[in-house]
Amino acid sequence: MAELYPKKRIDIVVESTLAPDMMQMLEDQGAKGYTMISEVAGKGQRGIRNHGHVTDVFRNVLIITIVDEAMLDNILESANKLLVNYAGIVAVSDVEVMRDDHF
Amino acid sequence: MAELYPKKRIDIVVESTLAPDMMQMLEDQGAKGYTMISEVAGKGQRGIRNHGHVTDVFRNVLIITIVDEAMLDNILESANKLLVNYAGIVAVSDVEVMRDDHF
Amino acid sequence: MAELYPKKRIDIVVESTLAPDMMQMLEDQGAKGYTMISEVAGKGQRGIRNHGHVTDVFRNVLIITIVDEAMLDNILESANKLLVNYAGIVAVSDVEVMRDDHF
Repeated sequence: MAELYPKKRIDIVVESTLAPDMMQMLEDQGAKGYTMISEVAGKGQRGIRNHGHVTDVFRNVLIITIVDEAMLDNILESANKLLVNYAGIVAVSDVEVMRDDHF
Repeated sequence: MAELYPKKRIDIVVESTLAPDMMQMLEDQGAKGYTMISEVAGKGQRGIRNHGHVTDVFRNVLIITIVDEAMLDNILESANKLLVNYAGIVAVSDVEVMRDDHF
Repeated sequence: MAELYPKKRIDIVVESTLAPDMMQMLEDQGAKGYTMISEVAGKGQRGIRNHGHVTDVFRNVLIITIVDEAMLDNILESANKLLVNYAGIVAVSDVEVMRDDHF
């Protein structure tokens, strides 16, 4: 049996202008890595955000990180502060990973 | 402790031609937002669907929405109707979110 | 009520050079389909992997597959072998799907 370790996955959708601050925050809080999907379109609290726009301002990115549960609360509170004046989604789910030392 | 609210995440993978109907359905059923990743490649029930094709017909998109559990059943039945003659994936998972009023 | 069937979702993030082997492995192990998001950027065990690089070598892809729990262990062990000299993430989570015969 492959050994699996329980972790928390955090999916963050934010305007691309906020992405650098969000990634820096994840590093500052101890997340060992993240994956970013740019050019994400969305409809949410502030209307359509389409990657076809001429301006970059309303493009969204999806940032996914997997962390120890012990880090979760600090990351969520920090994300909340960054998002206070912005649309944005932060969703937490349970995952299991194979390499404990990578997270 | 950051307060978290349990929701349902729905991941939908469909041919890009079906995406507008699927997004309209999500709005009609009360979903407050969704995120769409276009240019997704896939292999599934109907063979390779690669975004390198000249035609747009077999490109897939991934649509992610997070909703109250109370909306889940109507959305799933509506998605099923839209997909009756198509390949497509609808996967439901549990997530927790920080801002209850956004979903 | 829409009928749902419990499955395992596997998210795999790997360098794009490894993606063909990983997808072949999924097919060999019986996965009926997968979705691939290319041009994914990431920071992880081996530093920044940005899709802006001139070379393709450090681009990442995100491969998502949904399988029966019975297939999980073989897939994880095979993925682990492919990743032994590479950075890469394999994360498993619980999902429910509508069409049992597609997975």
